[in-house]
Amino acid sequence: MNRQRIYFDWNATAPLCEPARLAMVDALALPGNPSSVHAEGRAARAVVEAARRDVATLVGASPASVIFTSSATEAANLVLTPHFRMGRAPLFVGRLYVSAIEHPAIREGGRFPADRVTEIPVLRSGVVDLEALERLLAELDPQDGMALVAIMLVNNETGIVQPVEAAAKIVRARGGLLVVDAVQAAGRLPLDIERLGADFLILSAHKIAGPKGAAALVSRGETLMPAPLIRGGGQEKGHRAGTENVAAIAGFGAAAAFMTAGLDTRNAAIGTLRNRLEKGMREAAPDVVIYGHDVTRVVNTSFFTLPGLKAETGQIAFDLEGLSLSAGAACSSGKVGASHVLTAMGEDAKTGGLRMSLGPSTTGEEVDLAIGIFARIAARRKLSGKAA
Amino acid sequence: MNRQRIYFDWNATAPLCEPARLAMVDALALPGNPSSVHAEGRAARAVVEAARRDVATLVGASPASVIFTSSATEAANLVLTPHFRMGRAPLFVGRLYVSAIEHPAIREGGRFPADRVTEIPVLRSGVVDLEALERLLAELDPQDGMALVAIMLVNNETGIVQPVEAAAKIVRARGGLLVVDAVQAAGRLPLDIERLGADFLILSAHKIAGPKGAAALVSRGETLMPAPLIRGGGQEKGHRAGTENVAAIAGFGAAAAFMTAGLDTRNAAIGTLRNRLEKGMREAAPDVVIYGHDVTRVVNTSFFTLPGLKAETGQIAFDLEGLSLSAGAACSSGKVGASHVLTAMGEDAKTGGLRMSLGPSTTGEEVDLAIGIFARIAARRKLSGKAA
Repeated sequence: MNRQRIYFDWNATAPLCEPARLAMVDALALPGNPSSVHAEGRAARAVVEAARRDVATLVGASPASVIFTSSATEAANLVLTPHFRMGRAPLFVGRLYVSAIEHPAIREGGRFPADRVTEIPVLRSGVVDLEALERLLAELDPQDGMALVAIMLVNNETGIVQPVEAAAKIVRARGGLLVVDAVQAAGRLPLDIERLGADFLILSAHKIAGPKGAAALVSRGETLMPAPLIRGGGQEKGHRAGTENVAAIAGFGAAAAFMTAGLDTRNAAIGTLRNRLEKGMREAAPDVVIYGHDVTRVVNTSFFTLPGLKAETGQIAFDLEGLSLSAGAACSSGKVGASHVLTAMGEDAKTGGLRMSLGPSTTGEEVDLAIGIFARIAARRKLSGKAA
Repeated sequence: MNRQRIYFDWNATAPLCEPARLAMVDALALPGNPSSVHAEGRAARAVVEAARRDVATLVGASPASVIFTSSATEAANLVLTPHFRMGRAPLFVGRLYVSAIEHPAIREGGRFPADRVTEIPVLRSGVVDLEALERLLAELDPQDGMALVAIMLVNNETGIVQPVEAAAKIVRARGGLLVVDAVQAAGRLPLDIERLGADFLILSAHKIAGPKGAAALVSRGETLMPAPLIRGGGQEKGHRAGTENVAAIAGFGAAAAFMTAGLDTRNAAIGTLRNRLEKGMREAAPDVVIYGHDVTRVVNTSFFTLPGLKAETGQIAFDLEGLSLSAGAACSSGKVGASHVLTAMGEDAKTGGLRMSLGPSTTGEEVDLAIGIFARIAARRKLSGKAA
């Protein structure tokens, strides 16, 4: 990597912000186990609990309802289970409903067998079909247990904001539970678990400029909780056993505090850059299809198709030019398949989409360089009549 | 913490060694997701794979058979399941056998229901009773599925080395599978998964002077594998979904390399210090009971009872004097209960045991200070006739 690289893949993972890095370096110097009662143990415990407060503040929750996990995927596997407890009484969930554009971590259904997972369709606009949700929930026989519904707040590929508050009303009217994957929403939208009406929120540190290795399941209360996924220790009040990752949790807390402050200012700056990027892309290639520009999107994401440029080819071409972006999600060991999000939206998923995602440290210079790279790749595509 | 503190709780968690710290600081500067195909993604991937080789080397395994997890507890929950696959064919495990001195992460039984977990008793010496294991396995009806046996290589409280090689022969003769919790053995004993005869080994980074937040399940081959615990992404060849904790894994690899080198020299130094400590303790309180001194122990651990001093009281007294040690394991949110290890050994678990555990950076000065503190606390106990 000799020349300047442009990292436009913040939705895959965000570079660590300086407050998170400093918090982690400090935490790495602490020798103790947070479960130990001696001074070193108590010092490690204090770091974990301070981070818990910062993460809770990011989503308007009580610190007591934050359960730290190692990844959002783990949090999804924890909460997506047929087995809940209401206090001490077992509560059985009969069916899981997941939107067709959920992240694979949710779409796989966690601890539900495949035949008890139903997909909620998505409109052409990229927005979850709430009428379909209502219909599907009406078909569930209450004798078969309650419904658990998972709808993400912001789609990771398109950046499109989903109608979670409205979905929450529908789910509640049917006596169901709502899990909201807020991984891509945190730090980009103001979040309040009560106002959203979510029963559970999933957060990931490394998508908000914290480290990989920390995430959280946040619950609206503490009464209704899923059966533990990882057992064998009293950590996280018995909801998640295993020694806490003190340094990563410290970084998560610092990133949450960083993201809680100055949201509007940050969004205004990033949105201006993203819009400048899309204007430049449209000027360079008027046939570019940018998804979700006519519905509500988060300000940092641009998901597009360049006709004639296959997404996997495009990804490599941009990488060779020094620009990092994604073709779909980066979640599956480097494999680039057809985008399930585009398929769900009824688009031609064969060409695929490319995603540029920006962040707080993105500069105007990077955006201008990116437009130049985009223009060169778009021109090559035109000249050869196919993928660059 | 104004005065010098003496950290003698390495078995609860080890202070981070400098190579691990440096590897982590470097890894935190990498922006990419190891699943991304662009340059930043590939750079993160390279760090993960280099660490995998270092961890594999520590236990004589192939890098391909190392699955990274977030904790040893998670690794235990992954492997302790009735559902295995031999290639593509499902393989059903009918019963889990765990020794009575296993860590709670194993004793809880992972994904086995409680009524399919059998305890293997332990001799008064603190060594697993192999005759009992043989008897128990003979009683299992092969119609009920195969046996999964979990025996730790080194007990976390006593430091006593368990007869794993002999157990492996017994388990194999019955067609069962052997899981070895090697968390406290790694870095203290030479480890070779083939020679041990274990089908699976569990390792934890933070017990070998790596960071909290990384651990591994190592398998002898790749054919026979447990059903995934965390699904929804192709990471770790589908055995464990979720973005890899690149920095913690980097630290794990560096710590593994650090521990692989110079094992004998390190053990000789630590053993000398531990023996000096125990000699000093015996001189200061001839009635001190040191467990496991007549069987094979790792060189860093001293587990003892001071008659008349309750373990939880003693822990606080030592902490106030500036010495950190454990009363039993530190795994359960600060709760100090009766030691299940002492109970299993047929000892009076009411008084409980105290554990001092040393590490590579322990000094002779610390040992001498510790002996002084021990002598003061032992004397107070004598004067008052009860707990200090």
